[in-house]
Amino acid sequence: MKKHNFYAGPSILPEFTKEKTAEAALNFAGTGLSVMEVSHRSKEFVAVMDEAVALVKELLKVPEGYSVLFLQGGASTQFLMAPYNLLDKKAAYLNTGAWSKKAIKEAKFLGEVVEVASSADTVYNYIPKGYEVPSDVSYFHYTSNNTIYGTQIPTPEVDVPLVADMSSDIFSRPIDVSKYDLIYAGAQKNLGPSGATLVIVKDAALGKVERPIPTMLDYTTHIKAESMFNTPSTLPVFACLQTLIWLKENGGVEAMEQKNIEKAKILYDEIDRNKMFQGTVLAKEDRSLMNVTFIMTPEYAEFEKEFMDFATAKGMLGIKGHRSVGGFRASIYNAMPVESIQALVDAMQEFEKMK
Amino acid sequence: MKKHNFYAGPSILPEFTKEKTAEAALNFAGTGLSVMEVSHRSKEFVAVMDEAVALVKELLKVPEGYSVLFLQGGASTQFLMAPYNLLDKKAAYLNTGAWSKKAIKEAKFLGEVVEVASSADTVYNYIPKGYEVPSDVSYFHYTSNNTIYGTQIPTPEVDVPLVADMSSDIFSRPIDVSKYDLIYAGAQKNLGPSGATLVIVKDAALGKVERPIPTMLDYTTHIKAESMFNTPSTLPVFACLQTLIWLKENGGVEAMEQKNIEKAKILYDEIDRNKMFQGTVLAKEDRSLMNVTFIMTPEYAEFEKEFMDFATAKGMLGIKGHRSVGGFRASIYNAMPVESIQALVDAMQEFEKMK
Ligand SMILES: Cc1ncc(COP(=O)(O)O)c(C=O)c1O
Ligand SMILES: Cc1ncc(COP(=O)(O)O)c(C=O)c1O
Ligand SMILES: [Mg+2]
Ligand SMILES: [Mg+2]
Ligand SMILES: [Mg+2]
Ligand SMILES: [Mg+2]
Repeated sequence: MKKHNFYAGPSILPEFTKEKTAEAALNFAGTGLSVMEVSHRSKEFVAVMDEAVALVKELLKVPEGYSVLFLQGGASTQFLMAPYNLLDKKAAYLNTGAWSKKAIKEAKFLGEVVEVASSADTVYNYIPKGYEVPSDVSYFHYTSNNTIYGTQIPTPEVDVPLVADMSSDIFSRPIDVSKYDLIYAGAQKNLGPSGATLVIVKDAALGKVERPIPTMLDYTTHIKAESMFNTPSTLPVFACLQTLIWLKENGGVEAMEQKNIEKAKILYDEIDRNKMFQGTVLAKEDRSLMNVTFIMTPEYAEFEKEFMDFATAKGMLGIKGHRSVGGFRASIYNAMPVESIQALVDAMQEFEKMK
Repeated sequence: MKKHNFYAGPSILPEFTKEKTAEAALNFAGTGLSVMEVSHRSKEFVAVMDEAVALVKELLKVPEGYSVLFLQGGASTQFLMAPYNLLDKKAAYLNTGAWSKKAIKEAKFLGEVVEVASSADTVYNYIPKGYEVPSDVSYFHYTSNNTIYGTQIPTPEVDVPLVADMSSDIFSRPIDVSKYDLIYAGAQKNLGPSGATLVIVKDAALGKVERPIPTMLDYTTHIKAESMFNTPSTLPVFACLQTLIWLKENGGVEAMEQKNIEKAKILYDEIDRNKMFQGTVLAKEDRSLMNVTFIMTPEYAEFEKEFMDFATAKGMLGIKGHRSVGGFRASIYNAMPVESIQALVDAMQEFEKMK
């Protein structure tokens, strides 16, 4: 039976990425060796790193004066590295979910955190608006897509440097990198396998804090060494490169955004139309194009488990909602084909007819 | 032409590891999905993590009261995590090379470091002996195998807890884990691809320092979450598991040690016999079984580049010595077949006959 991969992360990757990576696991760049067993300093692997960095810059139109890094440690390590490198005395954070909260917790190790707004009171089912960002902060940090709660945020209009965790929507739409001091993302949604972490940092934003920074937590360490200060995660970086090539061949982030709008619309329209389901996010403009969260309507609440089993039997994988939200979550990243979304919609319609 | 993979790391892996990983990059555990695109919390991946941890415990006879973790960040991140978690006021370090030096540098962020001995004066071509370890230190740290300089250290007899960077000789021989508070190793030599870092830590050694520890740097974070606090490096961990399975099927670390002794002897015997070559490590008991470093004898010094080209033309890869040592380095980890070592010895003999 055809499987439909709605996992939130690690999550669906293009066939191209999987095939090229499987090939390179046996024979990389004609070396006769696996990509797992060649030195990261071999000319073949250095070419992989260089091309991956160049494609990130090209696809996201990264301006001059920014460095692109592939590190280890996941976005969770960035929760610490961001304030270590950038927070002088105070930083502002928007609390839109569990990941924002974890980022806030780490920042508090290093200075004062102003939580400008929070939607914690209603399990993060909306994006706070109309908050004030103090002008004397080092930066304003936000989570651009809240993987768990199905909310997404356009680039905020604020007068201080921006720092964003874009783990779950990077490469899903164009962004104006020039507005940011720092963007980071675990690879394991739109980019590649877990084990690689993408960092885009403005060089001029660094070197402004007084504190000594441990070597591995210092962005300048990795900038100077072009992500090769220590051994990078070679196979994951190779796989990321394949996805970047695929992205470019498929029209880049501009084309992805159009497809993502169309794909999400099919699912949200059905959630709205179908009397058995409803979205969890209150305002339509806050709805994520990457993670579509929905629950049974109150009248049909009792059928939640039955629908889960029904959809699972039809090949849907990973559609259980996070335990803090309940219900369902369909993660529909760049690589998700419209056919899988249609299969989920069909299952919802079939289930409605049965009741 | 057959390639002989003497890279120092990432380095040669068993065919078994490469084949299983290539397979799983396309279809993992019968899911129809790549191991790169299933949730780390799926039952299929949790089984991978559990089996990898169990095999590490079995192969190294890890006693009760120790936790085995698969983290990200490489051994370089452990240079920082080790003292963050374990160094109360003072720690002792043995300086046997560039990696020891980097470990010492990070430890100094967190407390006083007593460098008990150093072989820096002679480019680390021997292992210092007869040093004194103060009894009032939190631990004694050493690098068990010095990848760059070709030296190796048996478990030191000291009266304080041991901490060891075993990046380049873990699983090459039995170790008595009960003597250690902490063992760590980047995966990319004897275990798997880069991107995974193995940590073996004594639970009772933790919680003794006063300082607050950032979440991702705290071993207890990862112990509580069984290496799933954040997304682990899933494909690299899968590949590590394959090597562990291969290790077990091939007699475990006891059989590896025998093979490694035999393999290294073939190469060292030729280095000693051949009038054109000599080892860089002074005392035979300090010689590494993993990284065999050698140079041209003074009479034949002019032929270094010619031999490099000659050996390269015969399929030898990665035999250039580290720039700080010069000459040659043949890394002959567990997965290295005796045939490749023989091929290098043949090249040395053929070259000698030509001159
Ligand atoms: C928005 C967001 N931030 C951070 C993380 C944590 O990333 P990692 O597991 O790579 O540390 C996740 C989950 O993967 C996420 O969805
Ligand atoms: C003995 C030793 N320690 C530490 C390291 C650094 O490891 P990593 O690159 O994983 O940070 C290396 C090299 O890979 C090494 O050989
Ligand atoms: Mg969130
Ligand atoms: Mg509805
Ligand atoms: Mg060394
Ligand atoms: Mg000789």
